[in-house]
Amino acid sequence: MNGAEKLVHTLLDHQVDMCFTNPGTSEMHFVAALDKIAGMRCVLGLHETVVTGAADGYYRIADRPAATLLHLGPGLANGLANLHNAKKARSGIVNIVGDHAVEHLQLDAPLTSDIHGIAAPMSEWVRTSPGVDAIAADGAEAVRQANARPGRIATLVLPANVAWSEVPDEPAPVAAVAPEPASHGAADFDRIVQALRDEPRSTLLLLGDRALRAACTDLAGRIVAATGCAVRAEFYTARLERGAGRVQVPRLPYAVEPGLAALAAFKRIVLVGAKAPVAFFAYPNKPGRLSAPGCEFLTLSTPGDVPQDALQALCAALGAHKAPAAHGGAQQAQPALAGALTPEGIGRTLAATLPAQAIVVEEAMTTGRGFDALTAQAAPHDWLTSCGGAIGFALPAAVGAALAAPGRRVLALEGDGSGMYTLQALWTMARESLDVTVVIFVNRAYGILRGELAAVGAGTPSVRAQDMLSLQRPDLDWSSLAKGMGVPAVRVDELQSLGQALRRSYATPGPTLIEAML
Amino acid sequence: MNGAEKLVHTLLDHQVDMCFTNPGTSEMHFVAALDKIAGMRCVLGLHETVVTGAADGYYRIADRPAATLLHLGPGLANGLANLHNAKKARSGIVNIVGDHAVEHLQLDAPLTSDIHGIAAPMSEWVRTSPGVDAIAADGAEAVRQANARPGRIATLVLPANVAWSEVPDEPAPVAAVAPEPASHGAADFDRIVQALRDEPRSTLLLLGDRALRAACTDLAGRIVAATGCAVRAEFYTARLERGAGRVQVPRLPYAVEPGLAALAAFKRIVLVGAKAPVAFFAYPNKPGRLSAPGCEFLTLSTPGDVPQDALQALCAALGAHKAPAAHGGAQQAQPALAGALTPEGIGRTLAATLPAQAIVVEEAMTTGRGFDALTAQAAPHDWLTSCGGAIGFALPAAVGAALAAPGRRVLALEGDGSGMYTLQALWTMARESLDVTVVIFVNRAYGILRGELAAVGAGTPSVRAQDMLSLQRPDLDWSSLAKGMGVPAVRVDELQSLGQALRRSYATPGPTLIEAML
Repeated sequence: MNGAEKLVHTLLDHQVDMCFTNPGTSEMHFVAALDKIAGMRCVLGLHETVVTGAADGYYRIADRPAATLLHLGPGLANGLANLHNAKKARSGIVNIVGDHAVEHLQLDAPLTSDIHGIAAPMSEWVRTSPGVDAIAADGAEAVRQANARPGRIATLVLPANVAWSEVPDEPAPVAAVAPEPASHGAADFDRIVQALRDEPRSTLLLLGDRALRAACTDLAGRIVAATGCAVRAEFYTARLERGAGRVQVPRLPYAVEPGLAALAAFKRIVLVGAKAPVAFFAYPNKPGRLSAPGCEFLTLSTPGDVPQDALQALCAALGAHKAPAAHGGAQQAQPALAGALTPEGIGRTLAATLPAQAIVVEEAMTTGRGFDALTAQAAPHDWLTSCGGAIGFALPAAVGAALAAPGRRVLALEGDGSGMYTLQALWTMARESLDVTVVIFVNRAYGILRGELAAVGAGTPSVRAQDMLSLQRPDLDWSSLAKGMGVPAVRVDELQSLGQALRRSYATPGPTLIEAML
Repeated sequence: MNGAEKLVHTLLDHQVDMCFTNPGTSEMHFVAALDKIAGMRCVLGLHETVVTGAADGYYRIADRPAATLLHLGPGLANGLANLHNAKKARSGIVNIVGDHAVEHLQLDAPLTSDIHGIAAPMSEWVRTSPGVDAIAADGAEAVRQANARPGRIATLVLPANVAWSEVPDEPAPVAAVAPEPASHGAADFDRIVQALRDEPRSTLLLLGDRALRAACTDLAGRIVAATGCAVRAEFYTARLERGAGRVQVPRLPYAVEPGLAALAAFKRIVLVGAKAPVAFFAYPNKPGRLSAPGCEFLTLSTPGDVPQDALQALCAALGAHKAPAAHGGAQQAQPALAGALTPEGIGRTLAATLPAQAIVVEEAMTTGRGFDALTAQAAPHDWLTSCGGAIGFALPAAVGAALAAPGRRVLALEGDGSGMYTLQALWTMARESLDVTVVIFVNRAYGILRGELAAVGAGTPSVRAQDMLSLQRPDLDWSSLAKGMGVPAVRVDELQSLGQALRRSYATPGPTLIEAML
């Protein structure tokens, strides 16, 4: 058995059985091992940003890490942006990155690069396996790191000579992977109880990370019902379980002014897996923190804790266990809408058509700003957004989510600008026959940036600036792009046909792309 | 004047007047400055790997750096693979990377990342501008670094607050940009002269970097004619000026065995801007160095030197100045070919049709292996290859080359696997109406890897490994992909229609994509 085979066995032994790949020559022994050893599902992406984004989406739904297989420094580099998003989402991923054989590195061949340096900014853990006798332990440690809570980006560099060398007889047995112990750091617990009793109206429960799962939002809803406090979710949500019959936890707004307005009334914010809310970008003469001046932050649980435990303890202390959760009521049948593709009409159409247990992966920064409220009463679903702001998240994450949840429909809501970053993901959807419905909102611009340019006082931009924010000249034709990658596509320009296309797609196995012409 | 405007003025003052961009919010003041100040050509790429690859291609043809404008750490990360290629090609590039305002960094907003750490592995020079009073000097230094010989990747991080703050009155004048002094390190000169006199048949002139320009290959040809030594180019060529009427300098082969065979006869290799030849990858039980055991290396000039000076001095010492260069003769009319799209037939068809002064950007690793010899007698042209081996080079580099040389036809020879990495470049070709002919060689596989998998002794691969190397299921339809980005496309499946499509494309302004079905 060679090192590559040992590593594949180690991954499988530790329940890592999904590998998103784009290998090269230096990974061929690993590819051969994947081929020889049964049990690993291997999914090819035609660019590494598809590979890493899929691993992020997979983790969010499966609650366990996938592996990636990346080709040397440049392959890893290509995947960094979606590793950034995954890291900010606290997703666990095991990256296997091939490297030259150690004796080859000194020759400075063309593909030689500082892989450790490339990995470090987007990884919580990086190790170059020093030799074949260490590969099993290194692989197990990488999985342990990725499985920690919060999840971690673990990058294991596999030199070609380690992959191809024979493993010595009977290596030391690998210790079982133990999850990181959850910390219980609610030092603020008594203060939180007191505040919720004394001043509930000026207290906000802010949920993030795994506190956004339904079991936790239900508990938060009981606390709201019992005390009269408010509850919100962070704007960026790794996975928010929401919809009809569940507690409504509105996300904070994206932009600075509405963010400030949403938080102005609160003297204190109780963080449940969340961070203190800050502006996405800094602007001259605007605050960076969105909370009111002097706002007190109290931590009920960090992303390293088990939020359900913390919320249950809080419920118990407040006598809220039996309070009926303040949820938003049952799903209501909505009439099919007709007319122009306005953001509101689109949101209502999405809500009316969404199948139960759908997974929505949303990266429609311009068009989708209001979808949160409009879809609150849709059938129960999960809502995933980019957590790091690197665009090109939704299509790859949809690939991973679909592979993690066969039988559930994935709906990817994507802008045309963001979509072009990772359009190669469409091909993987077609190859794997994934039940993904992609909606591209075609506004022919980096729409969000037009407002930003106006905000910096650029006046009326000339063609030079306009061209940098426009996707026109030529117009992108998403139906042709989808066809080029084997995904059937349909173009719609009003709500009724959007609704029909959505329903048809949900009823049809495999992927569809809907080009929504705004 | 704010810091962004000052930086744009500084770039323009130092002859950097081409900016490949994909900006975001943190770069909006820079975009506004580009809009306000005349003189900068701004070219949008729909993914940063297009942006950086275009800057590489631009430098190789223009012999001066372009700027890039990249959005924070993830935008820079997306461009790293082609920065790797550019660095290995010794291309100079000035990257301008926006960052959050300094006071915003401590808030750990979603897009916060270690930009310096991301930049470092692929940059020779990185600086975060500390304040608006330093921005002019920092910008000038970045240009000076990029303009050095060899060219350098210079990355200047521009915090938003530096961009938007007013420049203090009368900043210190910026020193003129002085090129790095060329070193003259031919310590081996006398030994080289002696070897070429005494043992020319066992001596190889190995040319790389700027020694591959025609003025240098002509001098090398005179030395060959006068002494009987051999001359070769490195396999990876930033820009090889070749074709009819020029000295033929065959590139070293890619693979290990032919590389060893090509160099077996040489007791010494004279390096002229080249490095000692090494295998691209390491393999068990194969050597890493391609030169014969005990081969002596003598350095005539390094990439920091002016190779023409060194070669002229060598000619003078050898009395070779008046020897007629051993060139390959005049262009010969070639008959139009018909029949199957074999690599040889394709190469001959390319040679027969290539317009004079074309720029060939070649990344057809599987199909194009033999193009070097087959096109040696084509009309005079430049031949550019990836120098770092990160795939996805050719389409972006073709964008940059075309912008650097209006009036010259660019021919991008691209594999389907590599092409999918950076297909967004097609859109920029269409937007800028670039005279680029793209030929995609459709073999529906990472063809080069099939041989590599066989070489590692994987036996007959099962579907799991085959699928990781195959681009089938579904088949990519490049004509639709091109149409989706506004580039007219034609599909050919035999040589005559290939030749016709090439000629038609060369006669038609703007881009064309030819999908060659192998």
